Amino acid sequence: MKIKAVYAGTFDPVTYGHVDLIKRGAGIFDTLILAVAESRNKTPFFSVEDRIEMLEKSVKGLKNVRVESFNGLLMGYMKKKGARVVLRGLRAVSDFEHELQMVLTNRKLDPEIETVFMMPREEYSYISSSIIKELASLGADISQFVPPFVLKKFREKQG
Amino acid sequence: MKIKAVYAGTFDPVTYGHVDLIKRGAGIFDTLILAVAESRNKTPFFSVEDRIEMLEKSVKGLKNVRVESFNGLLMGYMKKKGARVVLRGLRAVSDFEHELQMVLTNRKLDPEIETVFMMPREEYSYISSSIIKELASLGADISQFVPPFVLKKFREKQG
Amino acid sequence: MKIKAVYAGTFDPVTYGHVDLIKRGAGIFDTLILAVAESRNKTPFFSVEDRIEMLEKSVKGLKNVRVESFNGLLMGYMKKKGARVVLRGLRAVSDFEHELQMVLTNRKLDPEIETVFMMPREEYSYISSSIIKELASLGADISQFVPPFVLKKFREKQG
Amino acid sequence: MKIKAVYAGTFDPVTYGHVDLIKRGAGIFDTLILAVAESRNKTPFFSVEDRIEMLEKSVKGLKNVRVESFNGLLMGYMKKKGARVVLRGLRAVSDFEHELQMVLTNRKLDPEIETVFMMPREEYSYISSSIIKELASLGADISQFVPPFVLKKFREKQG
Amino acid sequence: MKIKAVYAGTFDPVTYGHVDLIKRGAGIFDTLILAVAESRNKTPFFSVEDRIEMLEKSVKGLKNVRVESFNGLLMGYMKKKGARVVLRGLRAVSDFEHELQMVLTNRKLDPEIETVFMMPREEYSYISSSIIKELASLGADISQFVPPFVLKKFREKQG
Amino acid sequence: MKIKAVYAGTFDPVTYGHVDLIKRGAGIFDTLILAVAESRNKTPFFSVEDRIEMLEKSVKGLKNVRVESFNGLLMGYMKKKGARVVLRGLRAVSDFEHELQMVLTNRKLDPEIETVFMMPREEYSYISSSIIKELASLGADISQFVPPFVLKKFREKQG
Repeated sequence: MKIKAVYAGTFDPVTYGHVDLIKRGAGIFDTLILAVAESRNKTPFFSVEDRIEMLEKSVKGLKNVRVESFNGLLMGYMKKKGARVVLRGLRAVSDFEHELQMVLTNRKLDPEIETVFMMPREEYSYISSSIIKELASLGADISQFVPPFVLKKFREKQG
Repeated sequence: MKIKAVYAGTFDPVTYGHVDLIKRGAGIFDTLILAVAESRNKTPFFSVEDRIEMLEKSVKGLKNVRVESFNGLLMGYMKKKGARVVLRGLRAVSDFEHELQMVLTNRKLDPEIETVFMMPREEYSYISSSIIKELASLGADISQFVPPFVLKKFREKQG
Repeated sequence: MKIKAVYAGTFDPVTYGHVDLIKRGAGIFDTLILAVAESRNKTPFFSVEDRIEMLEKSVKGLKNVRVESFNGLLMGYMKKKGARVVLRGLRAVSDFEHELQMVLTNRKLDPEIETVFMMPREEYSYISSSIIKELASLGADISQFVPPFVLKKFREKQG
Repeated sequence: MKIKAVYAGTFDPVTYGHVDLIKRGAGIFDTLILAVAESRNKTPFFSVEDRIEMLEKSVKGLKNVRVESFNGLLMGYMKKKGARVVLRGLRAVSDFEHELQMVLTNRKLDPEIETVFMMPREEYSYISSSIIKELASLGADISQFVPPFVLKKFREKQG
Repeated sequence: MKIKAVYAGTFDPVTYGHVDLIKRGAGIFDTLILAVAESRNKTPFFSVEDRIEMLEKSVKGLKNVRVESFNGLLMGYMKKKGARVVLRGLRAVSDFEHELQMVLTNRKLDPEIETVFMMPREEYSYISSSIIKELASLGADISQFVPPFVLKKFREKQG
Repeated sequence: MKIKAVYAGTFDPVTYGHVDLIKRGAGIFDTLILAVAESRNKTPFFSVEDRIEMLEKSVKGLKNVRVESFNGLLMGYMKKKGARVVLRGLRAVSDFEHELQMVLTNRKLDPEIETVFMMPREEYSYISSSIIKELASLGADISQFVPPFVLKKFREKQG
């Protein structure tokens, strides 16, 4: 069986938590596509080009992983790519309920697509991109949560 | 990549919820082993032979699924079988916390093993073997929750 | 519309939390039956006769409430009584998941029966019969949690 | 006992989940008022007139149900209408905590008003108006979640 | 041991729930600093001066409590003050997950700082500043939730 | 202020999670009593003497910590010892609800006693004495979860 899986998100920016999950997914699926949601309405902190660049640097060396951007409905994107599995991270109870809702909604839209959950290392389970952006804006040292080139991008943006 | 996954449980007895999850797992992994825990201490309602027989009937026709029994530590069994993925069902918030605890504990015991979660159809999300045994003992009609041959086994046991 | 509702439980023993919920239910349904589960397998602390007696004393003066005992499947009992509504108390998140499971299971067994939830006063939201039994066995003063005649029954049983 | 209940919400737009709950409420209360919150501050997607029209079409044939709009404090509206019961849907653990908070707050404001919860069909438990609006904006087929005339309104708005 | 603790928040405005927690904290720590976050980005309803004034009135008579304002990272503020304990209130499951995330993040930033949780009286467990602002804007009587001088400030602001 | 705190439990056996919490508590309270519940009814795996011995070895070097055993109601024991603070660990959402219930019940029994919660290191948040006993009974290597002398006691008991 050749399984193509998609791990979608805004990745604004990529964290060590994402990287941990990507490695786990790359270890059990033949191809893992990292699908960066352009999310123009939500006005992300980093541009889609920056978010892709940081992700690509984070996964260098993982042969079966590739980074793309997408727009619109994830289920539509999956079909176009011939991907059958959505990979998601589960960290907290509050995640769980939202994820359950998404799985059941997506199944109605396309019953062929399966969603698969993995859990990041406990050490990364409380990291989220939004907390990291808040910490960075307050001048905290975030080097334990993100790779060095993400740190650098933050400094460039903050001037 | 050839991935061998294990879906372990007491299966006392198998329900339509288990069957739904097994089909999802069989659709994305090359081999899926259903590992029936003998659980001698917990004194299951059905014998391990009966539980295996009912499971085997439930998965007839799924070519990459096979049923076995096991004893002792799941992580040890995985290693012996050369299996790298534990498949688990997630139905409720209360499941989630227990599952998270198991994942993190198992990782300490063997960091090579990955645990992957899938969600059953919403219609089956509230079925559990223990509720079914309770309902059966009260004389309720459980034909919507278990396959016909499980119903029959209940009747045989209840005489 | 004449609605007959059933509030079922072990009531081992009745607490001020139960009494609060009974009053709320009696205020919106035409008839409220308190159905005391005999629960012979679970070996309750108080006999079914004692539990009924304490409940009856607790609801004296509520004209549309009556106390009965029942055995077996609640859905069967409802049908026999011509009752269409199950009344349940919701206190905590952990209650919620179990209750959701019961509602969905009961609907499969009898889609005509509706389950309705009410919330006790916050002051009573953390009282449960099992905590009260544990406290009583340790010699704590439980007079804030149960009516005086329940206290007395405890003393009789403890000798 | 003649009980008048109120099911309040933004209904932006009505979903099959709402309709399921309305039918359950209409089956146990003498009168059920659907109170559409005007919510001018939140700038709903559909106008209050459109939301009322869609709701009215959804409940055609339910004799004891009527649709109104309201402004300001729900407890004040209840009093003016002579309604004693608030009907609410419970779908998820995260709902539960918010609902508990509302019940306890409302009781402080008016201890005469009771809140009663019912659970929608599991198939509708993960539908929310906000997910439907998001899906519609992404071009997804939402015909499984809302009645045909809601679909039509979406198309009119999206041009 | 002389322990200096900090209870930080926006206090927009102080509620009886906050006051309850402050009294508990003042009872076990040598010094308790109430640190009012200026939160300029979030544009609080009351000015930082008003929030400090209301807090100070609320804690008059508590000798070991003092009120200050702060900006930026809490961990940095703690260090500057020589404070080793963060005091937090825990009211609900949804609080809990967020709090856990904050504790673990803060520990990475400064492992010397400990976070300690206490629970307010059940009667105040569902009060939050944001619900109170919403109720006040709808004209509800909020005198059961906040001290009289907060009520007065609301009236001044609402004109 | 001289604060005497009590951390009570069965400690059957002590784990690295307990030790982590004890150190945190010893860092902020003047005296920390570890109160080992004899729990004769629950028939613990290790004798109370063994549990005390393992705890004492675990806290050697912590000057303000001492180990005792107790029986009966914790609130009564607190009073006898002149202790005003109960220290508890919070690890998971399911813990939280039970703990909340205990706090509120204990406050009714003795409003002078305060309960204070701290969170163990994330790495220890999923360890519990019962999981460790189960793992040990299955022959797993539990050296990452308990101190060496606990391991040794297990081996002695298992023969």
